[in-house]
Amino acid sequence: MRIVLDAMGGDHAPSAVVEGALRAAGEWPDTEFLLLGVEDVLQEEGPANLRFRRVSESIDPGEEPVKAVRRKRDSSIVVGCRMVREGEADAFISAGNTGALMTAGLLMTGRLPGIDRPALAPVFPTINGDGVLVLDVGANPEAKPQHLEQYALMGHIVAEKVMGIFKPRIGLLNNGTEAGKGTALTKAAYEHLGKLPIHFIGNVEARDALYGICDVLVCDGFSGNILLKTTEGVAKAIFDRLKEEFTRTTVNKLAAAVLKPGLKRFAQSMDYKEHGGAPLLGLRGPVIKAHGSSDARAIFNAVGQAHMFVTHDVINQISDKLGNLERD
Amino acid sequence: MRIVLDAMGGDHAPSAVVEGALRAAGEWPDTEFLLLGVEDVLQEEGPANLRFRRVSESIDPGEEPVKAVRRKRDSSIVVGCRMVREGEADAFISAGNTGALMTAGLLMTGRLPGIDRPALAPVFPTINGDGVLVLDVGANPEAKPQHLEQYALMGHIVAEKVMGIFKPRIGLLNNGTEAGKGTALTKAAYEHLGKLPIHFIGNVEARDALYGICDVLVCDGFSGNILLKTTEGVAKAIFDRLKEEFTRTTVNKLAAAVLKPGLKRFAQSMDYKEHGGAPLLGLRGPVIKAHGSSDARAIFNAVGQAHMFVTHDVINQISDKLGNLERD
Repeated sequence: MRIVLDAMGGDHAPSAVVEGALRAAGEWPDTEFLLLGVEDVLQEEGPANLRFRRVSESIDPGEEPVKAVRRKRDSSIVVGCRMVREGEADAFISAGNTGALMTAGLLMTGRLPGIDRPALAPVFPTINGDGVLVLDVGANPEAKPQHLEQYALMGHIVAEKVMGIFKPRIGLLNNGTEAGKGTALTKAAYEHLGKLPIHFIGNVEARDALYGICDVLVCDGFSGNILLKTTEGVAKAIFDRLKEEFTRTTVNKLAAAVLKPGLKRFAQSMDYKEHGGAPLLGLRGPVIKAHGSSDARAIFNAVGQAHMFVTHDVINQISDKLGNLERD
Repeated sequence: MRIVLDAMGGDHAPSAVVEGALRAAGEWPDTEFLLLGVEDVLQEEGPANLRFRRVSESIDPGEEPVKAVRRKRDSSIVVGCRMVREGEADAFISAGNTGALMTAGLLMTGRLPGIDRPALAPVFPTINGDGVLVLDVGANPEAKPQHLEQYALMGHIVAEKVMGIFKPRIGLLNNGTEAGKGTALTKAAYEHLGKLPIHFIGNVEARDALYGICDVLVCDGFSGNILLKTTEGVAKAIFDRLKEEFTRTTVNKLAAAVLKPGLKRFAQSMDYKEHGGAPLLGLRGPVIKAHGSSDARAIFNAVGQAHMFVTHDVINQISDKLGNLERD
C-alpha cells in the first residue's frame, strides 16, 4: 500500500505532517509513505518506508480553488490527486486549501461511475463517544434528492467498513422528526432513502445527532456546513469562556487544576481531529481532507483512516453498491 | 397597553405563566394583562391589572398545527392571535405548540402588507453578551430571495428599536464569507441585501455569528433551524458532560463548588430564555413565541420584549419601511 501526504498543507506544515508521517511509517512498516513538498522536508535519514518527492509549487489557503487547480498543475494537491487517479497512490491526504482539494479531487482523481457529486464526510463527535459520519458538509452546497441518495449509500458503506458498525443507522437531517417535514429537497430525499437497502431511521434533528441517535447523517452541503461550523463555533465559544472562568482568580485556578485531567479528556473526545480527516467520498480513490489546524496526531489519525479505506477496499464497495442499485 | 398570555402553553404551564404574569403586572402597573386558560388559574385575588378569560379548549404540543388551528377556534392560541388582529390585544405571548402559533399568527392575526412570509426571530446568545437576532429559524423552511430581503428589513427595525442598536450590522448566513459563495438562494439574496437602506456587512459564517460579528443574521428557515438546534444541542451536550465531570469524585465536587457561581453566570448568559421569546415578525401585531421550557423568568422577559415592541411601535415601523421600499 502507498499513502501520499501533502507536506505543504495546513497551519502547522510541514512539521506536523512530517511528524505524523514518521509515526505512521513506524506503525505500518509494510506501507510506503510519500511526502510531497517544494523543499525536502526529510532533513535526516528517515525510515525506509518514508520518502520525499519534490513538486514545483503549492496552493495557498486563500487562493481561489478552481483557478489554482487549473494553473498549478505541479502543486502538491494536484499531483497527489493525480497519483490516486493513475494508481501511483492508494490514498492521498492533505490539510491544505479545502476548495482546491475538492476541485482537484473532482478534476484529477475523478468521480466514480454512478456518483454525480462527491461529498465531504467528516465524523462529528457525539456525547456517547461513538461519533456520527456527516455527509455532505460542503462539497456540494446545492444538492438534489439523488445526490442525498448517493450520500446515504456511501455513508452506509463507510460506517460498516471503516467505522465497523453493524447495520448502521442512517438519518436525514431535517427541521423536525415527522415524515413530511422540511423543504422540497428533504421531502423528496425522505422518499428516496426509504427505498434503499439500508437501515434508514427517518428524519433527525441536529441536536439529536449529537446524542448519537444515528451513525450516518445525510444532508445537503449547505446545511451540513452550517451544522459543522455551528458545532465548532459553540464548542470553541464555551471552552474559551470556561478557560477565562478557570483563570479569573487564584482560587479558581487551584480548583480548575483539580478538574483539569477530566476536562482535558472531555475536550479531546469533542475534538474531531481525533476521528481523522474528512474523506471526499465518491472519487475513484481515497482523498482525505485533514483539518487545517491538524497536529501530528491528527495527521497520524488521518493516515489510519486512509489505511482502513484501502484495507477494506471501500472505493470498490461503493462502486459495486452503486452499480447494483443502477441495475436493480 | 394590553398584553395577552396563553396560560395553557409550555412545559410548566400554567404555573410559570401565572407567576411570570404576576411579576410583569407588578413591573408595569399601567399595562393590562390577560391570561387565557381553560380553568381559572388566578386562584387568589391578583393585582387589578391582571385578569383571566376562559377559553373552551387548548392545543397540545404534539397536535398537527394546521388541523388544530382550523378545528379549535376557541383555543387559547387561536383566541390570542385573533385578539391581536381585532385590536383587543396589543401583543400575545404563548409558550405552546410552535407550529400552531405560527399557523394561527398567519391565519388569525394576518400578515402585514408587503410581507410574503412571517419569520420566527429569536435572539441567540453571543460570546460578548450582546446577542444576535436570527431570522428566520423555521416559520418558512423554503425561502425565496425576496423573503430574505423582507427579513433583513424587519431585523434592522427590531435591532434598532427593541435592542437599541445604532446602525445595526446585518449579515447573511452563508457557507463562506466571500461574495458569490453558497446556493442560488444566498447568491441572489446577497445582491438584494446589498441594495437595501441597511448596514449590510455581507456573508457571515455560523461560528462568527456566535462571536458577535453582526447584530442581525438573515437566513432561510431551514438553515436557521439547523443553526438553532445545533447551538442548543452542542451547548446542552457540553454542559451535561461538565456536570458529570464535576460530580465524578468528592474532590471534583469540592473544586466545582468553588467555580460554581462563575459558571452559573456563564450558563445563564448562554441561555436564550434570558433574551425573552422569539417574535413572529411580519404579522399585523406582536405575537411572541416563548420557549417551551419557559420558567416564570422567561415569561417575564417575553413580556418585557412585548412591551418594547408596543412602546416603540415596531409593527407600524415595519409597515412604513416596507411601504417605502415598494414605492421606491
